[in-house]
Amino acid sequence: MSTHRTAPAALTPTPEDRFTFGLWTVGWQGRDPFGDATRPALDPVTSVERLAALGAYGVTFHDDDLIPFGSTDAEREAHVKRFRQALDTAGLKVPMATTNLFTHPVFKDGAFTANDRDVRRYALRKTVRNIDLAAELGAEVYVAWGGREGSESGAAKDVRVALDRMKEAFDLLGDYVLEQGYDLRFAIEPKPNEPRGDILLPTIGHALAFIDRLEHPELVGVNPEVGHEQMAGLNFSHGIAQALWSGKLFHIDLNGQSGIKYDQDLRFGAGDLRQAFWLVDLLESAGYTGPRHFDFKPPRTEDFDGVWASAAGCMANYLMLKERALAFRADPEVQQALRAARLDQLALPTVAEGEGLAGLLADRTAFEDFDVEAAAGRGMAFEQLDQLAMEHLLGAR
Amino acid sequence: MSTHRTAPAALTPTPEDRFTFGLWTVGWQGRDPFGDATRPALDPVTSVERLAALGAYGVTFHDDDLIPFGSTDAEREAHVKRFRQALDTAGLKVPMATTNLFTHPVFKDGAFTANDRDVRRYALRKTVRNIDLAAELGAEVYVAWGGREGSESGAAKDVRVALDRMKEAFDLLGDYVLEQGYDLRFAIEPKPNEPRGDILLPTIGHALAFIDRLEHPELVGVNPEVGHEQMAGLNFSHGIAQALWSGKLFHIDLNGQSGIKYDQDLRFGAGDLRQAFWLVDLLESAGYTGPRHFDFKPPRTEDFDGVWASAAGCMANYLMLKERALAFRADPEVQQALRAARLDQLALPTVAEGEGLAGLLADRTAFEDFDVEAAAGRGMAFEQLDQLAMEHLLGAR
Amino acid sequence: MSTHRTAPAALTPTPEDRFTFGLWTVGWQGRDPFGDATRPALDPVTSVERLAALGAYGVTFHDDDLIPFGSTDAEREAHVKRFRQALDTAGLKVPMATTNLFTHPVFKDGAFTANDRDVRRYALRKTVRNIDLAAELGAEVYVAWGGREGSESGAAKDVRVALDRMKEAFDLLGDYVLEQGYDLRFAIEPKPNEPRGDILLPTIGHALAFIDRLEHPELVGVNPEVGHEQMAGLNFSHGIAQALWSGKLFHIDLNGQSGIKYDQDLRFGAGDLRQAFWLVDLLESAGYTGPRHFDFKPPRTEDFDGVWASAAGCMANYLMLKERALAFRADPEVQQALRAARLDQLALPTVAEGEGLAGLLADRTAFEDFDVEAAAGRGMAFEQLDQLAMEHLLGAR
Amino acid sequence: MSTHRTAPAALTPTPEDRFTFGLWTVGWQGRDPFGDATRPALDPVTSVERLAALGAYGVTFHDDDLIPFGSTDAEREAHVKRFRQALDTAGLKVPMATTNLFTHPVFKDGAFTANDRDVRRYALRKTVRNIDLAAELGAEVYVAWGGREGSESGAAKDVRVALDRMKEAFDLLGDYVLEQGYDLRFAIEPKPNEPRGDILLPTIGHALAFIDRLEHPELVGVNPEVGHEQMAGLNFSHGIAQALWSGKLFHIDLNGQSGIKYDQDLRFGAGDLRQAFWLVDLLESAGYTGPRHFDFKPPRTEDFDGVWASAAGCMANYLMLKERALAFRADPEVQQALRAARLDQLALPTVAEGEGLAGLLADRTAFEDFDVEAAAGRGMAFEQLDQLAMEHLLGAR
Repeated sequence: MSTHRTAPAALTPTPEDRFTFGLWTVGWQGRDPFGDATRPALDPVTSVERLAALGAYGVTFHDDDLIPFGSTDAEREAHVKRFRQALDTAGLKVPMATTNLFTHPVFKDGAFTANDRDVRRYALRKTVRNIDLAAELGAEVYVAWGGREGSESGAAKDVRVALDRMKEAFDLLGDYVLEQGYDLRFAIEPKPNEPRGDILLPTIGHALAFIDRLEHPELVGVNPEVGHEQMAGLNFSHGIAQALWSGKLFHIDLNGQSGIKYDQDLRFGAGDLRQAFWLVDLLESAGYTGPRHFDFKPPRTEDFDGVWASAAGCMANYLMLKERALAFRADPEVQQALRAARLDQLALPTVAEGEGLAGLLADRTAFEDFDVEAAAGRGMAFEQLDQLAMEHLLGAR
Repeated sequence: MSTHRTAPAALTPTPEDRFTFGLWTVGWQGRDPFGDATRPALDPVTSVERLAALGAYGVTFHDDDLIPFGSTDAEREAHVKRFRQALDTAGLKVPMATTNLFTHPVFKDGAFTANDRDVRRYALRKTVRNIDLAAELGAEVYVAWGGREGSESGAAKDVRVALDRMKEAFDLLGDYVLEQGYDLRFAIEPKPNEPRGDILLPTIGHALAFIDRLEHPELVGVNPEVGHEQMAGLNFSHGIAQALWSGKLFHIDLNGQSGIKYDQDLRFGAGDLRQAFWLVDLLESAGYTGPRHFDFKPPRTEDFDGVWASAAGCMANYLMLKERALAFRADPEVQQALRAARLDQLALPTVAEGEGLAGLLADRTAFEDFDVEAAAGRGMAFEQLDQLAMEHLLGAR
Repeated sequence: MSTHRTAPAALTPTPEDRFTFGLWTVGWQGRDPFGDATRPALDPVTSVERLAALGAYGVTFHDDDLIPFGSTDAEREAHVKRFRQALDTAGLKVPMATTNLFTHPVFKDGAFTANDRDVRRYALRKTVRNIDLAAELGAEVYVAWGGREGSESGAAKDVRVALDRMKEAFDLLGDYVLEQGYDLRFAIEPKPNEPRGDILLPTIGHALAFIDRLEHPELVGVNPEVGHEQMAGLNFSHGIAQALWSGKLFHIDLNGQSGIKYDQDLRFGAGDLRQAFWLVDLLESAGYTGPRHFDFKPPRTEDFDGVWASAAGCMANYLMLKERALAFRADPEVQQALRAARLDQLALPTVAEGEGLAGLLADRTAFEDFDVEAAAGRGMAFEQLDQLAMEHLLGAR
Repeated sequence: MSTHRTAPAALTPTPEDRFTFGLWTVGWQGRDPFGDATRPALDPVTSVERLAALGAYGVTFHDDDLIPFGSTDAEREAHVKRFRQALDTAGLKVPMATTNLFTHPVFKDGAFTANDRDVRRYALRKTVRNIDLAAELGAEVYVAWGGREGSESGAAKDVRVALDRMKEAFDLLGDYVLEQGYDLRFAIEPKPNEPRGDILLPTIGHALAFIDRLEHPELVGVNPEVGHEQMAGLNFSHGIAQALWSGKLFHIDLNGQSGIKYDQDLRFGAGDLRQAFWLVDLLESAGYTGPRHFDFKPPRTEDFDGVWASAAGCMANYLMLKERALAFRADPEVQQALRAARLDQLALPTVAEGEGLAGLLADRTAFEDFDVEAAAGRGMAFEQLDQLAMEHLLGAR
């Protein structure tokens, strides 16, 4: 146990940290299923200015965040121009954009998988239109959250047919991006439920499996969100690890969630803190280079001071956890504990190079002469390792 | 509303219904985390006889269900011979087999992804050995439930490396089956947690995505279990639909679960009855031809009378739900309601054949002239449809 | 197995069935956390007329459902007068009323336990005002759902102090009702979370325990809602049984929920159908005489046809389940199965009248000579009993 | 941000910290629903010695932990004598004891509420016998965990009748303790499920409400367990706060749980770390004087080194969290933030002393002249407060 090492400077975010925020996050007005808005609308330009001042790297947006639904072309242009100027002034990037296919009642039964064919066509057109803007603003990732693609009752959606429609949509969008020569990849954002009773592609796994069946799988990855996986009780870091293993972590949504319940969108670090620690540990040790994107909602109890404090908290928490994770991995005692837990053995192939299955089958020490009871008696030393992690997390080492 | 149509005969299972049971299901002795066994061990031969008498089609087994762990080769042969005779006499098949890689303490940290390399080698050998027996007994599917592949703490398992080891195992087993010329395919059984805090490949989706990255993906599919997906709050039918859509539903485990909690393994029909209805509706309308395999545990409150009543209940419930589902789909009023809910439109491609993306982009009715508000005002008529389903399920139509 | 017994007439609700609906249920416009309203506002008078036509007994309301927030006194009177006339014409009762202490942003941190004292005072006044109206309209129960009484973070609410404030509020309201001589009792509606991260008095149990510590506990009971307890994974019937056992089931909110997730407010019967069956079985066999109040939200996919179909479905489902439950209890085979499961023994006191503890301690057959193993070997016959219930529920008996 | 303050000494437990452990915790052999024991049995005397060496204050036990089920009277005496000597030598106390009413198959349908009357009588006798021993060993609290009191199916248990039997049992036990003049109080331990599908008295709230209906409510309180409430998704600190508010926190079981799933019994601090922080903050600021009792299971991956490391970790984590919580409360910046969040206003009665309801009703500023919009616009400043808590927890302040 020694003194704590975080110098205040380490907690001050800079653009190099690649922190980004959705316009809809700090701009959330606090309308919830049981209550009206508690905050006025926030001008996207203000968000750009304030986030830049806090040390962010960029902002992201849904089409309707920037250009109110139903704007004329002239209004649209004016909104975009003003936004672009603000970005230039503030020095912020737009690494990602996405489409709002859920707020307007026309999407009440979904967008790409709405039963109504004309709604599906409209949804595709609305998406294509914003892809053009995204590309124009320099976005590299285009997120697709199909929040309304799902159902509340069993016969309302033929899921196999709906997946055909979903595939059709992503195949068409892939074609479009290729034809236009945009340097843009898609990232599907899974969610198990809310606002639909059950949403299609409910987890990272389901999204990855879907992507493998597209015409242009190389164009599509995932955009997992902390709270969405935790709403299914899943270990977020494990899901991210599988996405990384699959080469498909194109983007990430960081926030907080307190277990299986409604989608809370707490600031990053709130909710399951130990999971947040392991997530940062994974992202940093895996060399993930994408933006650290916060998709959270400042609680509706807060005024704008609380909004900005909350945004700053997201970044400070990431930096504190990063500092703790790096110290954990660098600690010789931890490295010894990892060996005691045989993480080094896990990294070795089970069958040696050149040995092959035949070799394994011929190896009597592997089965006939294997001392099962002796092997069973070996402790894994996981508790000692996890306690070291706890002490690093708490700044007690 | 009319009189109820189930003739008693319809509820009497026959081998044509393809109902199968694991030896470990009726044979479960009732040991749980807080209590000792409440029933004596059950001779596999008795299980074969009783299940045949109840109308089952086949039985399935883990190696250790049939041949106690640690048996000599001679004992092993005697067990197999006796079992085979019982199967012949009873006329039961063995469509599936699997390996017990979880009961013995040697597997406390997993099998194919155990940190200890020698445990991984032992696990592969144990599996290969039972694959030979499975093939010999005519099994077509070899299930792999990696119940111990996981962790309780964050640093104990490097998930990306563990997935490498998992892939290595399935690649080797695939090689083996191909080399031996066995007509056997693998089915991975996902589960989110229990007995490990978090298990690798926690859902159908994660397993499907993993399979796509194997050397012989065509040899590997999934064996989803009702309760396992429901332990993550996921809609089981939706998961099965995605597995079918992916061509990967190689086997299925039917049972019951009352929501997100410990793994209950209730008899089929208990737990979420409406989900059971939609599942049977899906399996029957999708033309799934595999066994209807029950993987349940007769509650430990029961004696053997309860065990057999519970097994009979699994089959009776499936048949009742099948009868209801067929009547639902055949009902002209339902067919009208499906059209009112525009399921027919969902089946149409969003972009017409030959129209292509260019056509969609050129179609002003799809976007510029689309009457969004009018479309938004159309009711989906899902409640009327779901109420018809409820009345069919309850036998009130 | 015999023919089904439900005559269509049995499913036609009448006022004798005591079905009631909140104005806010059929009047829900479909605004959710991710989407705008999909239906126009519904005139309370229309709701009264339509619900009466469907066979309802009464309607219930929040103050703001009837009289828009901020109405002048004259507007208020006009609204009440019009409503009262509609009730008279339709022959509907108002057995319950309640206060909206959650929609307006002033209640963002709660009402009776808001940190701001002036908000607490305002909330009490708003409640008292509507109690007067409730009494005037003949309500017998006044529901209190403290949906905003809670927090998202640990230091934001001192729960012990907040419970003092909650008690203060109910003590004052009790005084008021006694002083005014109103024949009105309060019913607290528990909910674990949503819209707050954690809500005070999260379950039936917590509410019952709170009530016991009030100045006028006899004036206060509970108003449990199906989905609210199921959002905590709790068995709703068990909770209702404890409320009945405690003499505190003053009112009930019937709806449907598909497991632990956001508050779904599905129509009654949707979600967990078997739990719905056991609930109706309990209410009917316990002789519960209060209204069967539906607190549901017709899904936002629906137009008004769907709204009314959904309301009708709530009632039809209750009646179907009631018919099944009565048949279940009347079936001699079931009665035999209940005895086989020793429900009759559960009804006997453990210590005989006059025996006392001394008698039990002196009874060697109770301990020293008790054949534990023989007792342990007795099967409980629960599976046979539950299968009978299943078959009754499915209309297969 | 300043240097970290934990001196190593602060993390070394001493008997003054009042840490206690169940014999069944360190002694758990690792048998789970899918696996055999991974550790040999542990002699209670060894546990006493080792726990004392680690700095514990006491140990607790189930009758069968100390005296194997079925021991003769002579064996029993010998076990007790040996244990007592070990306690004396080690200087450990036995502040609590409890009965094992769940392991033996005779309790498969419960104990105090088993349908079989003779089982209920046996359970009472088994309990009384161990109460004598508990009193003899100086225990002040007798815990009752009714883990088998429940059901998996709807008709198997008439809950109202079962609650009558439960009340009968506690009334009899209360009589016994009073008659014997024991200085012993009971603490009911709630749990929602596992090993039964649904357990009676599933939460702190249900247990509190039940206690209020006993003949000797003053003799009975609760023994809440972290993981048990979290298995229902409930906020543990909120439950503890209500138990304290009710004067009923007679004992507490500390451990860790990762969300809604099977009962994990992780070491304290693992699982939801922020909840652990708020719990310690509450216990310490409320002046709770009972033992800090750890009811956890060292994971079955561990050997005995892991067992003792895990036990030491429980205590170290408590002490670290206590140090953080005290620093949080003492920090002037936090005190200012609490005022900004108006916690001081929450502590004020809503109606002033002497004002009464009449005063409130007469106060026009409370309603008629209350500026609702202005009040609605006030931010609660909860995010700033919670971020301070985060930084204290992480040792960054």
